[in-house]
Amino acid sequence: MLIVHGNAHRLHDPSPAMARAGHPPNFDLVDRVDVVLDALRAPGAHQLQQAGDAGLAPIARVHRADYLNFLQTAWERWPNDRGSELALPQFWPVQGSPAGGMPARCPDSVVAQLGWFAGDAIAPLMAGTWAAAYESAQVALSAQRAMAEGARSALALCRPPGHHAGTARLAGYCYLNNAAIAAQAFIDGGMRRVAVLDVDYHHGNGTQEIFYERADVLVCSVHADPAEDYPYFVGRADEMGTAAGEGFNLNCPLPTGSDWATWCEALETCCQRIVAYEPQALVVSLGVDTHRDDPSGSFKLDSSHFVPLGRRLAELGLPTLFVLEGGYAVEVLGVNVANVLAGFEGKES
Amino acid sequence: MLIVHGNAHRLHDPSPAMARAGHPPNFDLVDRVDVVLDALRAPGAHQLQQAGDAGLAPIARVHRADYLNFLQTAWERWPNDRGSELALPQFWPVQGSPAGGMPARCPDSVVAQLGWFAGDAIAPLMAGTWAAAYESAQVALSAQRAMAEGARSALALCRPPGHHAGTARLAGYCYLNNAAIAAQAFIDGGMRRVAVLDVDYHHGNGTQEIFYERADVLVCSVHADPAEDYPYFVGRADEMGTAAGEGFNLNCPLPTGSDWATWCEALETCCQRIVAYEPQALVVSLGVDTHRDDPSGSFKLDSSHFVPLGRRLAELGLPTLFVLEGGYAVEVLGVNVANVLAGFEGKES
Repeated sequence: MLIVHGNAHRLHDPSPAMARAGHPPNFDLVDRVDVVLDALRAPGAHQLQQAGDAGLAPIARVHRADYLNFLQTAWERWPNDRGSELALPQFWPVQGSPAGGMPARCPDSVVAQLGWFAGDAIAPLMAGTWAAAYESAQVALSAQRAMAEGARSALALCRPPGHHAGTARLAGYCYLNNAAIAAQAFIDGGMRRVAVLDVDYHHGNGTQEIFYERADVLVCSVHADPAEDYPYFVGRADEMGTAAGEGFNLNCPLPTGSDWATWCEALETCCQRIVAYEPQALVVSLGVDTHRDDPSGSFKLDSSHFVPLGRRLAELGLPTLFVLEGGYAVEVLGVNVANVLAGFEGKES
Repeated sequence: MLIVHGNAHRLHDPSPAMARAGHPPNFDLVDRVDVVLDALRAPGAHQLQQAGDAGLAPIARVHRADYLNFLQTAWERWPNDRGSELALPQFWPVQGSPAGGMPARCPDSVVAQLGWFAGDAIAPLMAGTWAAAYESAQVALSAQRAMAEGARSALALCRPPGHHAGTARLAGYCYLNNAAIAAQAFIDGGMRRVAVLDVDYHHGNGTQEIFYERADVLVCSVHADPAEDYPYFVGRADEMGTAAGEGFNLNCPLPTGSDWATWCEALETCCQRIVAYEPQALVVSLGVDTHRDDPSGSFKLDSSHFVPLGRRLAELGLPTLFVLEGGYAVEVLGVNVANVLAGFEGKES
């Protein structure tokens, strides 16, 4: 399979910086890309390729201009008188007020703008965040381009991940929604229907938001119940899309601690919905933080379970773009991703 | 003047705890109440009184039941495996999304519920927060009760402050909106029109939200431009109320660094609006963080300016309840508050 990767992701290294500043652990280690690459590097197994640069235009098809401008300039504008390595939001606009008419507006203060554009305090902005996020989107776009030019499948080794990033929102280690950008690129290349299947432990709230009112991108997701787990506020089963998008969002939330049998059943529900939708391509938001050792999750999948996952996806018979999302148990991250590809390509590993 | 105060506020001591945890400075020092009391203790000057307990019912007239339940139970429910002295929000519901139909719902996880009910990360929950906030509301209610029984004016030495707390929102050192609770108690006691005048450096976004759709409580505020200063997202001049409340919210935002002349002009605008409204009582959200030495503000008022402020309020000729809000320059906090009362009572101090 074609594997696309980059190098600039190393410029965004939040984990040690968050630890030094006394914040809860950040699991998006720089090493995550390397351990996957190492697991896929067996001679003849896959074709590795560096990401190209398709520019900002395909990113701006998904993300709002004010948000992109903020991401590109915020670190320079941050009042860094205390010499911090990172910026985190402290203030955010009021939501859910009964006084619906009271408008919240984006302030001029960059300190407050970070809260305006953030969904949580676990996705820090750092000096290299924009460069890394931009490259991560380019990794997805290069893989998508290769498929538009004929490749049947590809894996985009994106880091930072993307599926929590909304139209104008950074959250959950995510800044640009790589999977959504790739799905949009398929649409802009002439496809009429694209499916996104999110198998990450956490609900892909950014992807859901981006396509919530659209019928041309079906979004299906298997994830931990948001009542108990990140991203908490959305991802429930009755969120099915609105307007033209009604019926084109499928959430399968599962209880904390779910095992392979339960998980597999929800996957089957998603697969059947995808078959009925008859998409022209499939984008898989490939999180492997469903593994039992993952520090960010509670599900009980073993590494061996990722083989039948890949096999089931292959049975859909669709051009398939895998986009890396979560997966934070670095000892098994490589084998888990390799197993998905092995199952997909019909090789038992 | 009748001065009402309490003791349980000492149970909420966020400043040293925030410092120990490496957070930005929290200025709501426990000493704030004592320095004001000391400044007002001259023999015969004022009548000091401990707060009574009017129960939860008058608080529940302003704050939502789910929020009050959260405030009372959150600390016990907090997963305190790391032995922290305080709880801060890390996750919050998405706002301002173009996908308006995507519902955000309150999760079961208390860690996420804190984000659901919080507007920022500067109002920590601690073991004693509820007891302190409850007492602070009782301080305001006892002062209001004394006025309902005939006192012409009173000062409620509330701590923690209240004006950033919304119907179901903690924010900006505030948990229960003492001024709003007192204003509502005047209404529930039979008054038809009550005015709230907020002279704190920061916009009273909680008070604005609580009364935004109502005509029976006029809210006027002089404060720093929220585009540049806390609470950032609301407090602009064109926010004038909605529905029945349209025209009953007056914001006078002022540029960073404004001096007494500028401030005084905005105060006059508010006073004239209050006169036109013909209220039966006035609640003053008395922040003195407009002083030039205040660590949370940028205005240039001197201690002497608080005398004419008090004098101007007396000229309104209304039953007047002062409710302490901000004021964090502890060296001048006492004299600033004493000067307001001296001006109000026609004594030059």
